[in-house]
Amino acid sequence: MFQFDLIATSGPARAGRWTLPHGVVETPCFMPVGTQGSVRALSPRDLEAIGARIVLANTYHLFLRPGEETVAKLGGLHRFMGWPHPILTDSGGFQVFSLKSMRRVSEEGVEFRSHIDGSARFLSPERAVEVQWTLGSDVAMAFDHVIPGQSGREAARDAMERTGRWLGRCKARFQALESVRGLEVRGEGRRETTAPASGSRPLDGGPSPLTPDLSPLTSLTQSSLRRTLVPIIQGGTWPDLRRESAQRTLALGDWDALAIGGLSVGEPKAATWEMLESLGPILPAGQPRYLMGVGFPEDVVGAIARGVDLADCVAPTRMGRNGAAFTDDGPVNIRNARHRDDPGPLDPGCDCETCTTFSRGYLRHLFAAEELLGLRLLSLHNVRYLIRLSARARAAIVDGNFEGWSRDWLTRYQAKEQA
Amino acid sequence: MFQFDLIATSGPARAGRWTLPHGVVETPCFMPVGTQGSVRALSPRDLEAIGARIVLANTYHLFLRPGEETVAKLGGLHRFMGWPHPILTDSGGFQVFSLKSMRRVSEEGVEFRSHIDGSARFLSPERAVEVQWTLGSDVAMAFDHVIPGQSGREAARDAMERTGRWLGRCKARFQALESVRGLEVRGEGRRETTAPASGSRPLDGGPSPLTPDLSPLTSLTQSSLRRTLVPIIQGGTWPDLRRESAQRTLALGDWDALAIGGLSVGEPKAATWEMLESLGPILPAGQPRYLMGVGFPEDVVGAIARGVDLADCVAPTRMGRNGAAFTDDGPVNIRNARHRDDPGPLDPGCDCETCTTFSRGYLRHLFAAEELLGLRLLSLHNVRYLIRLSARARAAIVDGNFEGWSRDWLTRYQAKEQA
Repeated sequence: MFQFDLIATSGPARAGRWTLPHGVVETPCFMPVGTQGSVRALSPRDLEAIGARIVLANTYHLFLRPGEETVAKLGGLHRFMGWPHPILTDSGGFQVFSLKSMRRVSEEGVEFRSHIDGSARFLSPERAVEVQWTLGSDVAMAFDHVIPGQSGREAARDAMERTGRWLGRCKARFQALESVRGLEVRGEGRRETTAPASGSRPLDGGPSPLTPDLSPLTSLTQSSLRRTLVPIIQGGTWPDLRRESAQRTLALGDWDALAIGGLSVGEPKAATWEMLESLGPILPAGQPRYLMGVGFPEDVVGAIARGVDLADCVAPTRMGRNGAAFTDDGPVNIRNARHRDDPGPLDPGCDCETCTTFSRGYLRHLFAAEELLGLRLLSLHNVRYLIRLSARARAAIVDGNFEGWSRDWLTRYQAKEQA
Repeated sequence: MFQFDLIATSGPARAGRWTLPHGVVETPCFMPVGTQGSVRALSPRDLEAIGARIVLANTYHLFLRPGEETVAKLGGLHRFMGWPHPILTDSGGFQVFSLKSMRRVSEEGVEFRSHIDGSARFLSPERAVEVQWTLGSDVAMAFDHVIPGQSGREAARDAMERTGRWLGRCKARFQALESVRGLEVRGEGRRETTAPASGSRPLDGGPSPLTPDLSPLTSLTQSSLRRTLVPIIQGGTWPDLRRESAQRTLALGDWDALAIGGLSVGEPKAATWEMLESLGPILPAGQPRYLMGVGFPEDVVGAIARGVDLADCVAPTRMGRNGAAFTDDGPVNIRNARHRDDPGPLDPGCDCETCTTFSRGYLRHLFAAEELLGLRLLSLHNVRYLIRLSARARAAIVDGNFEGWSRDWLTRYQAKEQA
């Protein structure tokens, strides 16, 4: 479980296959984000139809609403979302550090106020791991200290070192939970004695009481499956801090994957790429590399070019709801009047429901008339675009021609913009 | 074409089959409403999956935005909506008469101000028919004079008589367009000489220039197919005026279907039923009867009980967006806190994607978190509920047991409400 097979490389770009408890993910792979347990405007069937194989959910949001206990009572995150495939949960670190004035950071953790009702809440490395455990994601992320993209070196060092210390605490709590799961899987655990001190809930939910009508779905609650904790490399925009963070991380355990966080948070793009390039040589080849928060087409291709295997972002759905669509000829704003009478598809090269069913004229009408279907159709296309883009990159890597393919792709993608 | 076969009766309730150019509709049938060319929050695939066979669109809305010419340029209404099955368009009468202060009625037609941009617009019997012709719906509705449910007898008589006079004008314009279509189908028509004086557009669009990528969809543009015009019986809440309206209507032609309008507009429910009961004996058995604007479950069953074959309403989608779901045990408000930890389905008896995939707890979360998917999932279920309800009623009629079935259904549907 969680084995990563490197299939091919083309320069630093990598094609691989990551085997998770709920399914296999071919990499490079774009992961759609279901912040609150729903990839906005899309259903699980939509996501399956467009080739999504793993989705994200956010610990911060689900911790506040509906609460991880409720998700567990409802059968765990897979059952909750109706998504029987792999799920990765972000730890909440990024969100709580984004709250700025509403939070107080200490070595113990982060006190913050809920953006929903202003209530005082607390997340620590241990709590973040417990919440994700209760949610039941396949991949839990370590609780990290994220700083703005323009932060100074001292702040970057502090946050990187704290992230390292917190990683040790995340790992300890995760291992404790894993050992209890192992006992339960072997029938040796007794729930009332093995529950961790911090929680009154059943350890990982177990199969919830389902009505007979939902019995086909109980397979979504696979509480006996192994999970993994993935560390996050920090270090701001300083290559040496990034490398130090990677080395500290690698020294702390034998991880199933490695994440690179704190990028795409306001720093210049050149700095993002420099960090990836400085990390590339020291990261082990045998584990997937996950660049957090990247999801514009040119950035996804740029990340793949620098060895990234996994990426996630809300961009495709957010852009879609704003009427912007990704195409090989650059972004299209469907609200533009020039699409009014256009009977052609949004993206002639795309195989999604939006592009094979509807005209640009109709899609523009949906946005002009504020019809909900428009939000969904452009979100669907944009996610499909990034999934297909990743698959096209993978094919080029396997062919040993990633550089040529990506240059051609980028030239066309940027042609209209520069014209 | 447009043949209606009466399969069975059970008291006044009827089971039939209506054959239209784009498909066969088994009756009783609930027709979802796509006001602006989209059944709100649902895709054509969703509608196919839940058994919808015919949908509505609104002439008033499409006339104002994007305009019937644009719809024609985009391949006609079927192609525009991505719906290759039957489509019925309302004439705009109901909408323009609902504008109250923003309209001026004369014998010629109705001048009104667009609710979108305040521009002065005009619809008449002739224009309403032309707009629907250009849109390309299978079933066009006559342009009628609709009055509020509490109107006095004189107003009801005036509106009924005007509706009758306007029906003659609608029919004349429709026949002129049909004869031109006949010439064109036989290859005898020349577009430049046969276009009606009022329009600069191609007569019915014809196949629009489609990109090669959309060629599989050109079958949606079936301009050579016959269409029909359906008259609307008015007369307020006066049985004798209703009967007079029906008789005037029947004297005016050999219609493919008959609609009953101006009900469900604020009158007491008993009055609605009285009108249907007074019309029942005088309406010909061989044509489907369409009750306009009815779509709450108890009203659909009540209408079927009184011989109605077709009904439409925005209720299932509007209610769904508000978090209200139809079930055999009465409406459920999914926002209610009691659903928070409920792992059971929204409606245990339902076979829709919503009920077979998600728990009540998850659906409540979607509404609490204001996720778009919630609007869609409850809309999907509610439309499915009415389609399934119509099919269950049909089965009971075929079994000769409609009265028993409907009594049992209503008892259960209202039990919790009365408890």
